[in-house]
Amino acid sequence: MQRPENTAGIAGQELAGEILAPYLHEQAGEFLRGLRLHREAGPDNQSTEEAALALRAAARRISATLHTFRPLLDPVWADQLRAELAWLSGTLAGEHACSARLARLLDALHRLAGSRVPPPRGDTGTLTVGAARAGALLDRQLTLARTRAHSAALQALGSSRFHAVADAVALLASEVPLASAAAAHACEVLAPAALDAEDRLDRAVAALPLARAAHPYNAEALVQESESQDSPWHQVRLLLRLHRYAQEVLHHGLGEPEPPERLLAAGRALDRHRDAAEAAAAASAAARTPRIAPATAYALGVLHADQRHEVEAARFAFQRIWQPVAVSHAASTAPAVP
Amino acid sequence: MQRPENTAGIAGQELAGEILAPYLHEQAGEFLRGLRLHREAGPDNQSTEEAALALRAAARRISATLHTFRPLLDPVWADQLRAELAWLSGTLAGEHACSARLARLLDALHRLAGSRVPPPRGDTGTLTVGAARAGALLDRQLTLARTRAHSAALQALGSSRFHAVADAVALLASEVPLASAAAAHACEVLAPAALDAEDRLDRAVAALPLARAAHPYNAEALVQESESQDSPWHQVRLLLRLHRYAQEVLHHGLGEPEPPERLLAAGRALDRHRDAAEAAAAASAAARTPRIAPATAYALGVLHADQRHEVEAARFAFQRIWQPVAVSHAASTAPAVP
Repeated sequence: MQRPENTAGIAGQELAGEILAPYLHEQAGEFLRGLRLHREAGPDNQSTEEAALALRAAARRISATLHTFRPLLDPVWADQLRAELAWLSGTLAGEHACSARLARLLDALHRLAGSRVPPPRGDTGTLTVGAARAGALLDRQLTLARTRAHSAALQALGSSRFHAVADAVALLASEVPLASAAAAHACEVLAPAALDAEDRLDRAVAALPLARAAHPYNAEALVQESESQDSPWHQVRLLLRLHRYAQEVLHHGLGEPEPPERLLAAGRALDRHRDAAEAAAAASAAARTPRIAPATAYALGVLHADQRHEVEAARFAFQRIWQPVAVSHAASTAPAVP
Repeated sequence: MQRPENTAGIAGQELAGEILAPYLHEQAGEFLRGLRLHREAGPDNQSTEEAALALRAAARRISATLHTFRPLLDPVWADQLRAELAWLSGTLAGEHACSARLARLLDALHRLAGSRVPPPRGDTGTLTVGAARAGALLDRQLTLARTRAHSAALQALGSSRFHAVADAVALLASEVPLASAAAAHACEVLAPAALDAEDRLDRAVAALPLARAAHPYNAEALVQESESQDSPWHQVRLLLRLHRYAQEVLHHGLGEPEPPERLLAAGRALDRHRDAAEAAAAASAAARTPRIAPATAYALGVLHADQRHEVEAARFAFQRIWQPVAVSHAASTAPAVP
């Protein structure tokens, strides 16, 4: 297989299937390796979590590839495997998400509680315990959720549904059900499909209120209906990941350069956006617990607002990372900042 | 009286007293005019408030002038009048401060309450009323405080202590007790005293953590002991005002140019800093009310955090305004931003 020098390491004259299949083989191998490590690791330890992370990372890449390059694959098979991988990833992600959310909230409470939550004057007796009580409440609630997620993951891993997914991935490690389009040159079908993924990302970013996000302390994230305004950002997070994995496919086997730091940094900002939004929701959910003390509720209110400001800060960070490309879009599509 | 052209409108060869005395005469006149308007206006209306504002503005300028140019004045007289003006200003300021704080907090609650305080899902019944209850609680508490401040102001205005202040200011409208130093040329004693005021301001600004404030979303204002870190900023606010009024004295009668927009904008940022800090304290004080509902406490926690972020935003705004001058100081004195 000849690789032309002039495409700077991007897929060109090879057949699309000759690039797509090895990438899927490799990711399927990673998935199976993660699965084996997960089985070998004891319950509830560090290596179980690492194995689950590796397994999910492979599942995300396979799923993204099935989505972006669907025209080059057997569509019925691709759609079905994607749905099953989404179920599996979602199930396996729950436990880690609960741990990470609890750690984020307790860190934030610790940061806030050394401080004036509650303020150290007046009859602070009941308020002083607010932050500690809020931490204990969140600990109980999120530990319970984590335990449930752990049971659900164990149950999923023992299910016939899971064994069917594992079998499908094991097959994928040696054989990819390609469509006839995969016999075309990569530059004709593979690169355009990757470009479509990038276009979808660019359009979604252009629709974000970046001009407002660029204005620090706009207090947007805490105000009216703004939590429902989170979803375009969450969507961009997913599209960014699809774009990154599509680039991985294109560059697969070609020395596999690191993805551009800008993409990684933007992804981290959007991860932080998502994590803070979910942590804020967990804080306000905890405040709906019946019969909590006012001091606890007060601390949860402060915590909720703190995490919503983290959401706003993450939007600001994303905008700063993206600006060189996106600011001209934003200026024309985003509302003016007062 | 000759004014040299080459000092660009700044006091020069005149005698210091010839600049200082007319300025104090004029401010004393403003004070007395405010006092007359205040007496003529009915109770509890717009013009009473305007008259009180005018009276306080004149009192601030007289007091600042007595402070900055103390070496040019009878020091015993200056110190005593300053103390009495501080008492009067403080007494008159209370009512307005309560109204403004309540308006700020209700505005913020209104902004927040259309939103996810509480979040519109789950058993939001009790939480939906949280913001409304918090507003009602703050309204009760601050209206009560305002009424008390109003009574205190009325009582003060009828007191013999007040009449003594009014007599002293009435005397000041025609005669200023100058020290012998006031017979020196303005450029030798008046300008240096004004320069000292500017130096004190510059040193205080240089000691502020401007490098951290320049970093948006540093979450400084909500964290450990940061409310006690407000005081250097409050101090800069006062020093900025002393500097501005000292410049007014220097330029008095010379066409009186508007103060530089930068000074005014910096002052507004520091006013906002002070107002937000006091509003945040009022929100957390309200949360210490016995037997409030958890939903109310939660909303007050969100409100407190929101106002502390306003504090942080005001610091950021001040730094942006001041940066052209102060950033080099800040870089050498402020802690590095992580």
